[in-house]
Amino acid sequence: MNIGGQAFRTIWPCDAGNSIQVIDQRLLPHRFEITTLATLDAVASAIHDMTVRGAPLIGATAAYGLALALQQDASDRALQQAVNTLQAARPTAVNLRWALQRVSQQVLALQPAQRAASAWQAAQQIADEDVAINHAIGQHGLALLRQRWQALQRPLQILTHCNAGWLATVDWGTALAPVYAAFDAGIPLHVWVDETRPRNQGASLTAWELGQHGVAHTLIADNLGGHLMQHGQVDLVIVGSDRTTRCGDVCNKIGTYLKALAAHDNDVPFYVALPSPTIDWHIRDGLAEIPIEQRTADEVLYVQGKNPQGQLQQVRIAPDNTPALNLGFDVTPARLVSGLITERGMCAASEAGLLQLFPEHAS
Amino acid sequence: MNIGGQAFRTIWPCDAGNSIQVIDQRLLPHRFEITTLATLDAVASAIHDMTVRGAPLIGATAAYGLALALQQDASDRALQQAVNTLQAARPTAVNLRWALQRVSQQVLALQPAQRAASAWQAAQQIADEDVAINHAIGQHGLALLRQRWQALQRPLQILTHCNAGWLATVDWGTALAPVYAAFDAGIPLHVWVDETRPRNQGASLTAWELGQHGVAHTLIADNLGGHLMQHGQVDLVIVGSDRTTRCGDVCNKIGTYLKALAAHDNDVPFYVALPSPTIDWHIRDGLAEIPIEQRTADEVLYVQGKNPQGQLQQVRIAPDNTPALNLGFDVTPARLVSGLITERGMCAASEAGLLQLFPEHAS
Repeated sequence: MNIGGQAFRTIWPCDAGNSIQVIDQRLLPHRFEITTLATLDAVASAIHDMTVRGAPLIGATAAYGLALALQQDASDRALQQAVNTLQAARPTAVNLRWALQRVSQQVLALQPAQRAASAWQAAQQIADEDVAINHAIGQHGLALLRQRWQALQRPLQILTHCNAGWLATVDWGTALAPVYAAFDAGIPLHVWVDETRPRNQGASLTAWELGQHGVAHTLIADNLGGHLMQHGQVDLVIVGSDRTTRCGDVCNKIGTYLKALAAHDNDVPFYVALPSPTIDWHIRDGLAEIPIEQRTADEVLYVQGKNPQGQLQQVRIAPDNTPALNLGFDVTPARLVSGLITERGMCAASEAGLLQLFPEHAS
Repeated sequence: MNIGGQAFRTIWPCDAGNSIQVIDQRLLPHRFEITTLATLDAVASAIHDMTVRGAPLIGATAAYGLALALQQDASDRALQQAVNTLQAARPTAVNLRWALQRVSQQVLALQPAQRAASAWQAAQQIADEDVAINHAIGQHGLALLRQRWQALQRPLQILTHCNAGWLATVDWGTALAPVYAAFDAGIPLHVWVDETRPRNQGASLTAWELGQHGVAHTLIADNLGGHLMQHGQVDLVIVGSDRTTRCGDVCNKIGTYLKALAAHDNDVPFYVALPSPTIDWHIRDGLAEIPIEQRTADEVLYVQGKNPQGQLQQVRIAPDNTPALNLGFDVTPARLVSGLITERGMCAASEAGLLQLFPEHAS
């Protein structure tokens, strides 16, 4: 996608394959800075501190991180340590695990001397595949949005939570891929952007990337969506997913479940756009089986923004001694999901629905 | 209630009845300042800019404001103008209208020369009655909490949204009156405090007043409550109400509806504590009939807090040109409300339930 008219991905190799560069997403929307990551630890930190975030981008970043680690030490032991370090950086993200497994399996079959180059190639492939997957999600979602627009005969009102846009992936986005595809196809639309406390990814990332692309949007507090749906101001909800179970339960940014409840209560279709690597075929019951990442209370207690002098600053919003709890995700049960949008098409949020598209996982 | 061990109300007369003093709630929790209001315009501004907020406190403040206006000009015309000015300061608040009507009716029967003193007396009475009403709500709620505690045999987990504590009233609070009563009665409990974007009344006011009173609490993003309820970590929800219809629909701070949906989906009792002046006996359908106040987009786009130097500061959380929509309230349909806690006791959220407690409104 474009930033100031220039085409960017969120991650790319540089320095002849000895480092990668990423957009430092912690500084958006107020500063656009590119940061270079040259070591395993730098990559793990960038994942943990959310310099990069979004399930698909985390997966691609971790794959590059493994390649960088293997450039230093390509032994089995070092490989396993690197996998553990990267896995621990964001425990909920299933793409992360998937990407690490894929690269590990590929390189374990090789002699240590060949591993780094092979891992690097695998990381490149994961990044390129992510772009292709998201483009396909966009095309399937476009058909859905076109249908809905033709039925309503007025600009579409779409609500999204968090950032599942191109900043969350290598390119295109997941939840926003259909939005960009529809916008580019000339379908009139407007996006309600949940600010997405506590980290405000909606306010800082989704609003920014939609604005860069010229898509009409309005920022709202996370509390507003229910009211909008009660009053017919939302035609559909599209969110992303960090992990989806075999039965269609969706683990996504904290607060997603509340929007799904409101959509259900008001007959608003609630779609989840997800690349298949975020599907965890090993689990069924999202509420019981998905560990939810607990993050620092400071993300609730402090808010970062631009001060009147134009500098990034954190301010504390609570009394000095107030304790806070900060969980990153919640699980939306499949019963509240109208449909899943994957790179192979749309399906019901159920085991049967998913297996129709992905029959290779039937066993 | 106590601040630093000293007993305070949120509003009190001073200067021999020529002004009132209030706590400037915009500066909490970082600064505790008392501000003096001596004119109609000062009072209207204090209501509009939320120096004072909370339906019951707004009502009492407006009554004092009318008294101050009548000290300057006690003509019928001036009275009507003052009523209009105060009414416009917060259009959703039904207490405001109720308090203005009550004072107006009382003074219109008098000669202009007697009106100011009479209005002042009426305002004092409204303030004192609010304290008595909230104390009664606390006692009825205490019975409910005691019952629930005895059934569960472990510390109660209570979730609340916004600030319906003593800062929202003249004293005691509405939603928090039962919490304070239970705490004072030795019932072990812990409160989940929704931060309540966009104005963060939970983070800044509820956390502060619970802390001053010594009640265990944890601040959470508004997005977290659904997850907590899914995992059995909330035993009941208690919120306040800015306006309740004859049929039990509850208009309260934006986001309340989402919590009610989550409570309903997880069989968590959802109670609304309300003084009867917030009941609007003239309307039935809250969604159709209650106008929702639209506030400035800046409340969404900027967050106020304490910077590292200890000063209050606003930071912008969105890109420079991002538009935002800011509505103050939503409506929770009566079907999602487990019960109403009023000064006369508890009842079902329905016309029949309310009329059992308030039979004088049957006609």
